[in-house]
Amino acid sequence: MTSTGTADIGVTGLAVMGSNLARNLARNGHTVAIHNRSYAKTQALLDDHGDDGEFVPSETTAEFVASLKAPRTVIIMVKAGAPTDAVIEDLAAHMEPGDIIVDGGNAHFPDTRRREAAMRERGLNFVGAGISGGEEGALNGPSIMPGGTTEAYATLGPMLEKISAKVDGTPCCTYIGPDGAGHYVKMVHNGIEYADMQLIAEAYDLLRSALGLSAQEIGTIFEEWNTGDLESFLIEITADVLQHTDAETGKAFVDIILDQAEQKGTGRWTVQSALDLGVPITGIAEATFARALSGGVPQREAARAANLTAATAGWEVADKAAFIEDVRRALYASKVVAYSQGFDQIAAASAEYGWDIDRGACARIWRGGCIIRARFLDRITEAYERDADLALLISDPYFAHAIGEGVESWRRVVAGAALNGIPAPAFASSLAYYDGVRAERLPAALVQAQRDFFGAHTYHRVDKEGVFHTEWSDDRSETQQD
Amino acid sequence: MTSTGTADIGVTGLAVMGSNLARNLARNGHTVAIHNRSYAKTQALLDDHGDDGEFVPSETTAEFVASLKAPRTVIIMVKAGAPTDAVIEDLAAHMEPGDIIVDGGNAHFPDTRRREAAMRERGLNFVGAGISGGEEGALNGPSIMPGGTTEAYATLGPMLEKISAKVDGTPCCTYIGPDGAGHYVKMVHNGIEYADMQLIAEAYDLLRSALGLSAQEIGTIFEEWNTGDLESFLIEITADVLQHTDAETGKAFVDIILDQAEQKGTGRWTVQSALDLGVPITGIAEATFARALSGGVPQREAARAANLTAATAGWEVADKAAFIEDVRRALYASKVVAYSQGFDQIAAASAEYGWDIDRGACARIWRGGCIIRARFLDRITEAYERDADLALLISDPYFAHAIGEGVESWRRVVAGAALNGIPAPAFASSLAYYDGVRAERLPAALVQAQRDFFGAHTYHRVDKEGVFHTEWSDDRSETQQD
Repeated sequence: MTSTGTADIGVTGLAVMGSNLARNLARNGHTVAIHNRSYAKTQALLDDHGDDGEFVPSETTAEFVASLKAPRTVIIMVKAGAPTDAVIEDLAAHMEPGDIIVDGGNAHFPDTRRREAAMRERGLNFVGAGISGGEEGALNGPSIMPGGTTEAYATLGPMLEKISAKVDGTPCCTYIGPDGAGHYVKMVHNGIEYADMQLIAEAYDLLRSALGLSAQEIGTIFEEWNTGDLESFLIEITADVLQHTDAETGKAFVDIILDQAEQKGTGRWTVQSALDLGVPITGIAEATFARALSGGVPQREAARAANLTAATAGWEVADKAAFIEDVRRALYASKVVAYSQGFDQIAAASAEYGWDIDRGACARIWRGGCIIRARFLDRITEAYERDADLALLISDPYFAHAIGEGVESWRRVVAGAALNGIPAPAFASSLAYYDGVRAERLPAALVQAQRDFFGAHTYHRVDKEGVFHTEWSDDRSETQQD
Repeated sequence: MTSTGTADIGVTGLAVMGSNLARNLARNGHTVAIHNRSYAKTQALLDDHGDDGEFVPSETTAEFVASLKAPRTVIIMVKAGAPTDAVIEDLAAHMEPGDIIVDGGNAHFPDTRRREAAMRERGLNFVGAGISGGEEGALNGPSIMPGGTTEAYATLGPMLEKISAKVDGTPCCTYIGPDGAGHYVKMVHNGIEYADMQLIAEAYDLLRSALGLSAQEIGTIFEEWNTGDLESFLIEITADVLQHTDAETGKAFVDIILDQAEQKGTGRWTVQSALDLGVPITGIAEATFARALSGGVPQREAARAANLTAATAGWEVADKAAFIEDVRRALYASKVVAYSQGFDQIAAASAEYGWDIDRGACARIWRGGCIIRARFLDRITEAYERDADLALLISDPYFAHAIGEGVESWRRVVAGAALNGIPAPAFASSLAYYDGVRAERLPAALVQAQRDFFGAHTYHRVDKEGVFHTEWSDDRSETQQD
């Protein structure tokens, strides 16, 4: 059976993300098959945006699949979890070997691995594609991280690259690696996004607490920062948010928002996977926990009722301009560490799952379309171009130098926060990581000795090979275990 | 069929932990059925320790179960994972409704929940019991955290209480709660142990780096600390380890150990579960990641090869005694925060899984037999006796006061570490948590505003009910969502 369909690609699930993606595909010259569980949304897309390009609507899955050229390529844009499984099953029943099912949602990578394996057994290509950039990105150019087979990418890739964001003419879409690689990289992207947002929030809080500046004034500082090394979408919108006034109260908008940050799971997944892989991603972890802390209402209420002592005199900053520059440098250094940790995690996952991920390419496709798009991602790509196997991003000469220039500022800011009672967990944690990874010797030796003492967990020595144990409760002699 | 057996309780799996537990039971007047996959270990136990009490050896599972009084009660002491499942299946086939299977290993709590449900369907009682204290504890009195039904505890409890450690005559064993509650509490115990060990390691490192003291001298300081608020098993063994000299080289023992701390999974599980529950346990997370960092050899080598800048002048401490006291207070405050976070997690899990765990009782049974046994656990029990629903341990008057007394020291130590390039991630993170949870207002408001900006994730306002969204890319008007 060969296809008699005419559509280049199909989209099923026409809520705002799916609808925008379908429109983006159509605007870029593709004939787009469209389908939704209820036809009303399909009709709405045709009514409102039918002139964006060529759409082929279908009421049933059978018609929808039949309307596609071979190899039939369908992007699923429905809720992660059971709804995605149901749609995959429905589609697969109508497809033929060699056809391509793309999950464009925020699936957890183990689900993507499971689905890919199940579809592969049936001769179908399953692509887990991370799509970042929200509704706006879906319509005008997202950053796309597709996993799956290279065979599937040969068909799918050119279409996705065409609709993706472009930076200096380069598409923000590239083949990431087999099975769950695409969704994994998207997950870490989101984890880094958590860290980036938390660091910005700490920088804002420090400027406000130490200098007593208004939100508006700090917005102007962020606007200024957005012209330098920190230039990024998140800094840009922070400037916007801080300069926005609540129409109802006339107060700074940031002051009328409840200070409880929510989360949807990708930060948590990132940290959980890093724990499994044994990769220290402390910046992302502190950011994820900072959101949890902010939402811990009973704990915060108990702390306030107990009137926990600050024991600080109040921060007196002599040179305001120097302090602002210190915070800027501390933010940049902490941010570089958060990215370094995230890329470390991608490398570990790539090794663990056999994905062979090109980290420089990840940084390249994050330069546009996605939430963490930033000028300095070019520097990361360059670092991995210099050394594809770079073990530690901050050891790259560019970043080592950049951090080196800011490290005194960074130390002053973290110390000042600690002395003055301003919580800066991600700043502090990133600096501790920097000092830990560069340490000639860590007190982990003592931890390992304790483990040998109470649990006979053994240890290695610095001066010879082997595994050793000391008879702590006996004569404290040392025995070699193997 | 009623039992004709004579043994009070059985132990299967006679490696050192199981063997010691069987001996402890026999020494305490129980007739103990013993069984091992290979009979050699059973014979060895009889040969070496047969005069510890009454043992009833069996070669097969059928004989082993038949040798027990009803309700037949068997403790499994085999490797976690598939071996445990195999032994459970084997035992269950020979048991009758009302019999009791106890898993005394370090099972992950979801496994315990799964096994309990499966055994319950067959009318059997399944008890996941956390046992802490290592080989030594198993023989002479461990801390025991049994989950399962109260019906099972009625039979099993008195035997376990009898063999557990005693503090002031009170057994370090109590009923924890249904299904996975026992193994969960043991898991958090281990997580807290990670934090405690890391904090001690940081205190040691600070004393060494800032004051240039020898390991021996610092061991003496820990010995001194062990007479006060910090009195605990871990402080005691730290003093021992630091004062131990390597026989071969004549150097301080801690200096010849490779500075890479290993882990076996319970710290990781603790953090992963806390992430699922949304409980910020930053001290345990930083401790877990600090071990991972220490073992990240390629990253550490890359950092050293790049000669990452410290940009510090070297720590000059004017008043050594005052500094030592600062570190002691910082250690105590950080430790209290780590415990507070761990107990917060237990409360959240208890609510999530319907376990109704008494946190004061957990602290009470941790006073002896286990690795984190410590004087100050009495203070925790008292805090939960004052208020069983205490939302935040550090808001209890005793701990609020204790931290308040040390908070200036704590701030100086964290600031000094940051300024002088000594990694103190757990100290810093605990202080940031303290300042975060007591903050009148957190910059999480900015994070939530960013989320609304790029993802239309909405926000709450401080001044009225409802869910709101600002039209950021349009006229920036606010709309109420529900």
